[in-house]
Amino acid sequence: MVLETAVPAATAFGSEFLGTMILIILGVGVVANNLLPKSKGRANAPGSLQINWGWGFGVMFGVYTAYKTGGQLNPAVTVGLWLAGKDLAPGLPANATNILVCIAGQFAGAFVGAVIAWLAYKQHYDEDCDPALKLGTFATGPEIRSPFWNTMTELIGTWVLLIWVLLSGYTTTAIGPLGVALLIVAIGASLGGPTGYAINPARDLGPRIAHAVLPIKGKGSSDWGYSWVPIVGPMLGAILAALTYRVFWL
Amino acid sequence: MVLETAVPAATAFGSEFLGTMILIILGVGVVANNLLPKSKGRANAPGSLQINWGWGFGVMFGVYTAYKTGGQLNPAVTVGLWLAGKDLAPGLPANATNILVCIAGQFAGAFVGAVIAWLAYKQHYDEDCDPALKLGTFATGPEIRSPFWNTMTELIGTWVLLIWVLLSGYTTTAIGPLGVALLIVAIGASLGGPTGYAINPARDLGPRIAHAVLPIKGKGSSDWGYSWVPIVGPMLGAILAALTYRVFWL
Amino acid sequence: MVLETAVPAATAFGSEFLGTMILIILGVGVVANNLLPKSKGRANAPGSLQINWGWGFGVMFGVYTAYKTGGQLNPAVTVGLWLAGKDLAPGLPANATNILVCIAGQFAGAFVGAVIAWLAYKQHYDEDCDPALKLGTFATGPEIRSPFWNTMTELIGTWVLLIWVLLSGYTTTAIGPLGVALLIVAIGASLGGPTGYAINPARDLGPRIAHAVLPIKGKGSSDWGYSWVPIVGPMLGAILAALTYRVFWL
Amino acid sequence: MVLETAVPAATAFGSEFLGTMILIILGVGVVANNLLPKSKGRANAPGSLQINWGWGFGVMFGVYTAYKTGGQLNPAVTVGLWLAGKDLAPGLPANATNILVCIAGQFAGAFVGAVIAWLAYKQHYDEDCDPALKLGTFATGPEIRSPFWNTMTELIGTWVLLIWVLLSGYTTTAIGPLGVALLIVAIGASLGGPTGYAINPARDLGPRIAHAVLPIKGKGSSDWGYSWVPIVGPMLGAILAALTYRVFWL
Repeated sequence: MVLETAVPAATAFGSEFLGTMILIILGVGVVANNLLPKSKGRANAPGSLQINWGWGFGVMFGVYTAYKTGGQLNPAVTVGLWLAGKDLAPGLPANATNILVCIAGQFAGAFVGAVIAWLAYKQHYDEDCDPALKLGTFATGPEIRSPFWNTMTELIGTWVLLIWVLLSGYTTTAIGPLGVALLIVAIGASLGGPTGYAINPARDLGPRIAHAVLPIKGKGSSDWGYSWVPIVGPMLGAILAALTYRVFWL
Repeated sequence: MVLETAVPAATAFGSEFLGTMILIILGVGVVANNLLPKSKGRANAPGSLQINWGWGFGVMFGVYTAYKTGGQLNPAVTVGLWLAGKDLAPGLPANATNILVCIAGQFAGAFVGAVIAWLAYKQHYDEDCDPALKLGTFATGPEIRSPFWNTMTELIGTWVLLIWVLLSGYTTTAIGPLGVALLIVAIGASLGGPTGYAINPARDLGPRIAHAVLPIKGKGSSDWGYSWVPIVGPMLGAILAALTYRVFWL
Repeated sequence: MVLETAVPAATAFGSEFLGTMILIILGVGVVANNLLPKSKGRANAPGSLQINWGWGFGVMFGVYTAYKTGGQLNPAVTVGLWLAGKDLAPGLPANATNILVCIAGQFAGAFVGAVIAWLAYKQHYDEDCDPALKLGTFATGPEIRSPFWNTMTELIGTWVLLIWVLLSGYTTTAIGPLGVALLIVAIGASLGGPTGYAINPARDLGPRIAHAVLPIKGKGSSDWGYSWVPIVGPMLGAILAALTYRVFWL
Repeated sequence: MVLETAVPAATAFGSEFLGTMILIILGVGVVANNLLPKSKGRANAPGSLQINWGWGFGVMFGVYTAYKTGGQLNPAVTVGLWLAGKDLAPGLPANATNILVCIAGQFAGAFVGAVIAWLAYKQHYDEDCDPALKLGTFATGPEIRSPFWNTMTELIGTWVLLIWVLLSGYTTTAIGPLGVALLIVAIGASLGGPTGYAINPARDLGPRIAHAVLPIKGKGSSDWGYSWVPIVGPMLGAILAALTYRVFWL
């Protein structure tokens, strides 16, 4: 049980860092397992259903890891909580320092998590395959490229995520982080079709930077032209969800 | 924890509106992800298993959203609770006003949810494909058309749903809305084969109206000839479940 | 919360009857959805993974329905509880009357549940297909026929089930009937390969009788030669589990 | 609820023995169901997704069975708890006797569990097939053989497991052993691609010994050259996780 004592900034950074790292290890890992040559997951081809569950569990166990800061793991969540007038976590008010520290931890953790996932699949990344598959294990990309509609899809997915984040406290359950795991699976299954559902700027940008700097054999472009969509879409979704919350529930 | 204070009618409408909207965003979304051209879900073809989970999670997170009204999200549930002699939710007695307000919220939310899911998949709806697939993302349809047997299947599925709704309070668990999510998955997996399991008049009619009025490229008929089955079957199932409840458990 | 007041025999019968009926509606239904012609589940072929989940959920929601008798739903469970020296449920001691009444309710409910599932899939049962598939939706059958080894597999599966039934009360969780649902999925995924895991005499015999007496178009043999295996194997497993329990945990 | 009374060594041995046995029955069983000829799981080919769930549920129900010792079931967990300065379970301090007794129970249970799973699938093991598939049901093996990178992958997977084991007590949930089940599924889905994720020396060595000594028809090598990797990798991961815990959370 988290007690309502103040969380120091260094602790908050470490908590979000490690939680987001776990999220990205499991998230990048599940895509690697499904896309990279000779991986057991690919041979059996369970496809996007397994990928959605992998990301859901990534968030779930990232939240366990980041229990001191409520497991935000996502700048859109951090900002959404602030805009809705809530604390980031018990003992962690939404002031400028805490917001920046948490977001910094999220981006740093996402980068390091992607490096660790790459190490776990090192030999499979060394195999020859379409460079787009290698990038696909790190960052999201749209099936039909369109700045407006891709942003719209990311906005709607993040809005659904934030509505639950803001309301879940009002329902009596004891499933803990399993709740958000299932929500991530649901958003992936239902709204992930067009863009692969980043719904989290740190989830996309951190691993994309890792893709750019790591010495990955036969890698191609990091697709920076798309990189702003999974930042802008989720942040707009968070703003809209905070607004919805203030209109309907406050 | 929901306290037993009276829920005003406007609040009840908004709660059922938003909850059913979330349900339909996720539900229509998961079918769109599986059926529409170029969607990531289609490329990997996880099929009806993923669709069942998508609808289950849609109900789950709709219930979280509609916590003020107990997350009915379904006219058959609302009417079944009334016929069984129960309140619609704590603080929300089953009188004519509350019943009508909740059902109105459900239909309105289902319509708007379908519009939002269409926006999320806009570019994929613009692609060429069989118009029946486009309709299939909005409304249910039978594999073998027969008014009598299709109604029978919808009746049985809804009866199973309502039996649980009426009895679940007697079992000690703390999984909250996850329970109904799994029941929806179960009914889909077990009884969804013949008709695609509407088991909810709002779930079918709301999106069907959206299909009729939205400017969807290359859309075909909204199949109004079938539209009464997912209304009549579920309502008969609710009546039968309330009767079963009164005979066996009261 | 079930209070420890005595449960009358008629109530016990009704409880096990309805609970096992729900179990079999969902269980027979999920196999029908996967095997019968033109069913949506078949078109998408999610296969045995979906079938395992369908049976798991069948038990889960059967347990909710039979809350007054602890949701035994299985003569092997009823007998295993008795042999381990436990009550069948709070307020329901394991005396001869209660054991017989519960088992009678289980067989009757399994029969009626199979009839209802047949009604839900009536038009799909009317289609032409291999009669073995039609029987396969009702009763279990081995992949490699051998009285000894098939009985062994059913014995091991039921033994795993009963060990959990006898021990689960010692672990603190609040997931309720979801626990046994996942155990049923697990036994199906892990031990269901050779015989299709009846692990429950009522689950197999009740629907097999329904197959024999219902006017199913183009049905073949009810395979009575195998029908004793899913009775003897599970009962031996229950005896062995009660023995294990008494040796290791009492 | 486990009370904090001292657990005798014989009880600890039996608890870990039976729990690991259940784990391996379900774990070896699910792979057998997927790989062996004529098994129902193979015919439907649900692939690695089902295998991950099978192992997850194996751990889950092993933990229920081994409730007296906290369901360690894994020498890496036992050693990780000790290095992190924790008790093995309430009433079971991490002294040399308890550590050795628990680990001995784990290896013995893993061996016997593999024998029982072989009995359940006896006729399918008797069928002709690639000997590598038969070994694959017992022990793990890499897709791309490399002592260094295979050890790295096992290390990372076990590190993720242990981080949760050490931290989960700080998050309020009531899902009990379901939490670790989902973590096992997650590690399999996300980090199981290169080596098949032993992440547990007993899980790999116990069944590998069973493969070596059982009279399995047409079996090939037990691949002893690889057998040290699923021992060394997980133990290094446990050490690293205990270190991470001491740096970040103590």
